[in-house]
Amino acid sequence: MKIDINVDMGESFGRYTLGNDEEVMQYISSANIACGFHAGDPLVLEKTIKWAKQYNVAVGAHLGLPDRQGFGRREMKITPDELRTDTLYQIGAMEAFLKIHNMEMQHVKAHGILYRMVTEYEEYIDPFYQAIREYNPDLWIMLPPSAPAFERGKELGMKLAPEILIDLSYDDEGNWVIERTKKARTPEEVAERALMVAREKKINTISGKVIEANGVTVCLHGDAPNAVEVARKVNEVLRENNVMIANLNE
Amino acid sequence: MKIDINVDMGESFGRYTLGNDEEVMQYISSANIACGFHAGDPLVLEKTIKWAKQYNVAVGAHLGLPDRQGFGRREMKITPDELRTDTLYQIGAMEAFLKIHNMEMQHVKAHGILYRMVTEYEEYIDPFYQAIREYNPDLWIMLPPSAPAFERGKELGMKLAPEILIDLSYDDEGNWVIERTKKARTPEEVAERALMVAREKKINTISGKVIEANGVTVCLHGDAPNAVEVARKVNEVLRENNVMIANLNE
Amino acid sequence: MKIDINVDMGESFGRYTLGNDEEVMQYISSANIACGFHAGDPLVLEKTIKWAKQYNVAVGAHLGLPDRQGFGRREMKITPDELRTDTLYQIGAMEAFLKIHNMEMQHVKAHGILYRMVTEYEEYIDPFYQAIREYNPDLWIMLPPSAPAFERGKELGMKLAPEILIDLSYDDEGNWVIERTKKARTPEEVAERALMVAREKKINTISGKVIEANGVTVCLHGDAPNAVEVARKVNEVLRENNVMIANLNE
Amino acid sequence: MKIDINVDMGESFGRYTLGNDEEVMQYISSANIACGFHAGDPLVLEKTIKWAKQYNVAVGAHLGLPDRQGFGRREMKITPDELRTDTLYQIGAMEAFLKIHNMEMQHVKAHGILYRMVTEYEEYIDPFYQAIREYNPDLWIMLPPSAPAFERGKELGMKLAPEILIDLSYDDEGNWVIERTKKARTPEEVAERALMVAREKKINTISGKVIEANGVTVCLHGDAPNAVEVARKVNEVLRENNVMIANLNE
Repeated sequence: MKIDINVDMGESFGRYTLGNDEEVMQYISSANIACGFHAGDPLVLEKTIKWAKQYNVAVGAHLGLPDRQGFGRREMKITPDELRTDTLYQIGAMEAFLKIHNMEMQHVKAHGILYRMVTEYEEYIDPFYQAIREYNPDLWIMLPPSAPAFERGKELGMKLAPEILIDLSYDDEGNWVIERTKKARTPEEVAERALMVAREKKINTISGKVIEANGVTVCLHGDAPNAVEVARKVNEVLRENNVMIANLNE
Repeated sequence: MKIDINVDMGESFGRYTLGNDEEVMQYISSANIACGFHAGDPLVLEKTIKWAKQYNVAVGAHLGLPDRQGFGRREMKITPDELRTDTLYQIGAMEAFLKIHNMEMQHVKAHGILYRMVTEYEEYIDPFYQAIREYNPDLWIMLPPSAPAFERGKELGMKLAPEILIDLSYDDEGNWVIERTKKARTPEEVAERALMVAREKKINTISGKVIEANGVTVCLHGDAPNAVEVARKVNEVLRENNVMIANLNE
Repeated sequence: MKIDINVDMGESFGRYTLGNDEEVMQYISSANIACGFHAGDPLVLEKTIKWAKQYNVAVGAHLGLPDRQGFGRREMKITPDELRTDTLYQIGAMEAFLKIHNMEMQHVKAHGILYRMVTEYEEYIDPFYQAIREYNPDLWIMLPPSAPAFERGKELGMKLAPEILIDLSYDDEGNWVIERTKKARTPEEVAERALMVAREKKINTISGKVIEANGVTVCLHGDAPNAVEVARKVNEVLRENNVMIANLNE
Repeated sequence: MKIDINVDMGESFGRYTLGNDEEVMQYISSANIACGFHAGDPLVLEKTIKWAKQYNVAVGAHLGLPDRQGFGRREMKITPDELRTDTLYQIGAMEAFLKIHNMEMQHVKAHGILYRMVTEYEEYIDPFYQAIREYNPDLWIMLPPSAPAFERGKELGMKLAPEILIDLSYDDEGNWVIERTKKARTPEEVAERALMVAREKKINTISGKVIEANGVTVCLHGDAPNAVEVARKVNEVLRENNVMIANLNE
């Protein structure tokens, strides 16, 4: 039994520090690294990649909207062609650093509202996949198994890594929801949810039901105040239960 | 006898158009394409690369300071490590588009004040070369043969492409100068200067002397009002005089 | 009989020039000047204000989304509070230059997609008005008389300047439309439309009907290739027909 | 006996938080608020101004270079006219928020490397003063009493507020220095330095000498990890010693 743990990383920018990347890196298997559009900068990008290498964590491009002030969380009606070229630009920028550090890009994942845009909005799904197919069809794409883009990705033969956002909440249809009062989950609760996904491929919903959660990777949010504790506990509980923490290629 | 003609390209940005890239592209052998820091954006970057492919023009990354408002012409005291990572970031971003269009990056060249910084300022010369060596030591680097970086580049075994800025002026020491009243050169005058570099490896200085100008490439500025006419005339005069217009690898 | 002619101005940015502001300024009565979010920069802002003063043109803040790459034309889901504070910030920035040149701000107008957002989208109408009421309720607000914000503005007692976009097209309901194939109107056609608005308060629609167009100001787009000719002709035809070209306070 | 305590504020940006402004605000008399160039954004700007009002703290525009990535700490060779218009733009943007909250701008101060540029670099001193004279000659200007701009400011009749950077170090000539190994001063040490400036107009140098420090305001850096403790202690020690903490107009 195995599962991948992915966390957003490299979101610091210039004088601004966000997250505790080096510590969190020690408990996970995949890092989604910001590429300088919604967060990050070239110095931070390289530093984060070096930590990933040091701690043997697989890396992916965390793609965002060109809106640093909004941290990629404000929907922008970019054109489908802008989505495609913004995607390629960010992937390429990150690749330069991977190349000099002899690393391979494992996956791509969209950040913030772009995650919703490229997995749920019809006009963006295909341009997003097109960029990846043109560039490197062997890249894994992390996305919710319930999203419209999942079926489409299967049709196109993309390498899909269904992901469960275990520190967020789900409704009974399997959609992740942002709750009005964000549920503050303890490290133990998140760890339990991770274990349930790994062992049973199931998760609890906000109504109390248990639904299918067929994920190969679980996501933790690195900018939560207790991110280090959560990552450490999830890692610990999984290993204690003989779940191997393995990146997407392991 | 042969010479390369290089021109800055891809400097448009969003709603703003600069230069007449598609036309100029037809008369040159190498394009220095802006990578989104001082100018350009992902859409423009790809469009320019496609034109280069269509007109069989070799391409290079035109690297700039992160200052769009100043068009990369305002000196910024970035750290040497920022120079190195900014260089890698921009090269990588461009490579993504080259990869999907089955093209190879031929060269790199610094833009605006960065051209002076990485060829004359001691603190930046080595970090600049280091970025290129780490990434791909087979990339040509365009720079003035009179610059301090030229000797250092030879020591390090870099692939140097000495360049003559034929539409600017030179002093008797072989340094390019920005004249107080910019000399408006006719297409014919520029073409004559290009021919002199190609055939005799010499150029006239502002004092009227003739000095050595040992360049394998000559640069034309694409944002001049008469850029198309100049490029066309230089191309025509060179070919009429049996000078082959050839990129750096030809 | 009188009418105001307003044109977008100050959209140049750093090395990038857009429009022919100084020439157009001579034919109009109100200038909507970009404030540095979607276009413009501090140098351009002041230069444009000085031209407005020289040619006796009233000035307004042309407010945009914080998206220079998209030229304020890509919808961004900013929060209502961001809309309010972005509005205040831009107005304030412009006021500094008006103050030192002893000028008064006449009006505000939203640019690009923000024009639609603050006149048609319920969540933004009130925050937009709130910013203006807090700052200076004597500012005129240019907007379409058919927009939902028009009624709301009357309720709130705002100073509304209904505007007709005479170089765009209208449908039979009085809404401006972007036609698939943009109608290229000659200076004469635009001038005729301006005259019809000024004299009869009517305009032709795309279906050929004539509808009410109760505007006190007509807008010309300054970034059209023939912007100078259009402005000159509209000015000429109005004056020949004894329509006074007057800003909103005249 | 009285002294002003000023601290940099409003440096948060979008998702990024810097400093603990609301707490620090309770111990000081003047806040230098970032205006959106090197740090801050419109939302943060207003929030900070509201805190200043709530805690009865005088406010000033903290002016920075247009370089968010470098946090205004990387020298940029902007033109003198850009310095002048960037200054006006930032002051104006802040004024809009002061106006709606019925507050007055007390002072201006340059941030980061711009602090050095406008107080020591000949080409920038006059354009900086010019912007302030044109806009509002009643604004206080905080600057080091040892800087070349101090004499020039007196000649021009500017309202100068000599400032001592009590949490930094001074050399025997009265110039502030950035030490290779930054001296980590305890709140008690900083408080003692503040008291010495307030009572004796003197300060200790790195060599151990005591030199004149004729300041009416002392600056604390709000982004230090112990900024709240330092501010609290300085406030406490000054008051215990019957030094009134008073803004520049009190």
